[in-house]
Amino acid sequence: MTGKLIGVGLGPGDPDLMTLKAARAIGAAQVIAYPALPGTASFARSIAADLIAPGVHEIVIEVPMTKSRDPAQAAYDLGAERVAEALEAGQDVAVLCEGDPFFYGSFMYLYARLADRFETEVIPGITSVSAASAAIGQPLVARNDTLAVLPGPMDSDEMARRIDAAQAVAILKVGRHLARIREVLDTRGLTAQARYIERATLAEERILPLSEAPDPAPYFSMILVAKGSDPWL
Amino acid sequence: MTGKLIGVGLGPGDPDLMTLKAARAIGAAQVIAYPALPGTASFARSIAADLIAPGVHEIVIEVPMTKSRDPAQAAYDLGAERVAEALEAGQDVAVLCEGDPFFYGSFMYLYARLADRFETEVIPGITSVSAASAAIGQPLVARNDTLAVLPGPMDSDEMARRIDAAQAVAILKVGRHLARIREVLDTRGLTAQARYIERATLAEERILPLSEAPDPAPYFSMILVAKGSDPWL
Repeated sequence: MTGKLIGVGLGPGDPDLMTLKAARAIGAAQVIAYPALPGTASFARSIAADLIAPGVHEIVIEVPMTKSRDPAQAAYDLGAERVAEALEAGQDVAVLCEGDPFFYGSFMYLYARLADRFETEVIPGITSVSAASAAIGQPLVARNDTLAVLPGPMDSDEMARRIDAAQAVAILKVGRHLARIREVLDTRGLTAQARYIERATLAEERILPLSEAPDPAPYFSMILVAKGSDPWL
Repeated sequence: MTGKLIGVGLGPGDPDLMTLKAARAIGAAQVIAYPALPGTASFARSIAADLIAPGVHEIVIEVPMTKSRDPAQAAYDLGAERVAEALEAGQDVAVLCEGDPFFYGSFMYLYARLADRFETEVIPGITSVSAASAAIGQPLVARNDTLAVLPGPMDSDEMARRIDAAQAVAILKVGRHLARIREVLDTRGLTAQARYIERATLAEERILPLSEAPDPAPYFSMILVAKGSDPWL
């Protein structure tokens, strides 16, 4: 009997925003695995820390942030091998994943390598988009609104077209693209309706009008635009 | 001292997919409020049922599903008045909301009527999109993918343009629009990559290839399309 691979969505950062199912899976796991930047504490592990039983076997997957994808892929190859060993030995492995595993989540890299060989379960998590929307107190989509989720690095013209088409827009991975994104929104007269959110639900959470957002922004930042074109009252 | 208005996201239906924070808020509330179709049991209440303390005051907001918006708006006017009375009396009110309150959630109608007068908190929930993606075992977005969330009633030509532009697409509120949506996806050769999901995470969950989806589909159904244009390995 091989073990079960469980991708556990941890939500945006506040441990209370884990689901009951995620909390139970972490508490019951014989082995936990999680990514970390080399030489730093794992953000995923910090969210789940209070639930990890003492003495549980921990597999740390050190994933370097480099321009080339190769070093990260090699790290996931190695991590997947170590997770596979535990699964082969009949142990269940809970893989800790910030946010939602299938919404830009790191778990996907293990899923791609292991799901065809082992029983797998994915526990969804609160996305950063839901968390940010709650944090700013601004409804995101209602009725027949459409939502566009866009990555910051996207080409400006393409971004502009998607923004024009949707009623609500979430721009993720803002980072060093902030000034360019702000220009796109300025041009369309949307700056006043755009909010900048950094590390939603954590103690370091920052919410700013887009005009006051730091440039460059950190990687874990987001811009939300609600155009309110659909009156929902 | 007036009470606090709390919009509680309950997630897609499996009670284990409530967050720890939501479970705590429901257990601690002096008053709970929730919508229900007239004459039927509330779906929101059924998700939270095991956490509702005996003797808690319950405000049922009976919301008719009609073509005109007016009867539903009148129901929310009345519901908001009753919630406001409890808040004025110093009681905290937890408003139960399926999914995520600010992602097509019913809580928004109370939020619009009460948030400017009372202290308000929103607890985000797992969206149906995250739940469906986990249920079908198909990663939704990775790296610099874009996601389009579209309502089923949307015009076919506009829907086609949004589908062409995004790497992943979630079409909600499919209902009687199923045949038309299927035609849009067929035309673009995307039927094989599209999955139909009904009532994700509930006992009645159904997952089907789009070609086998029921027509008309129930209101709580979704089509997910992952085009996989961005190789994430």
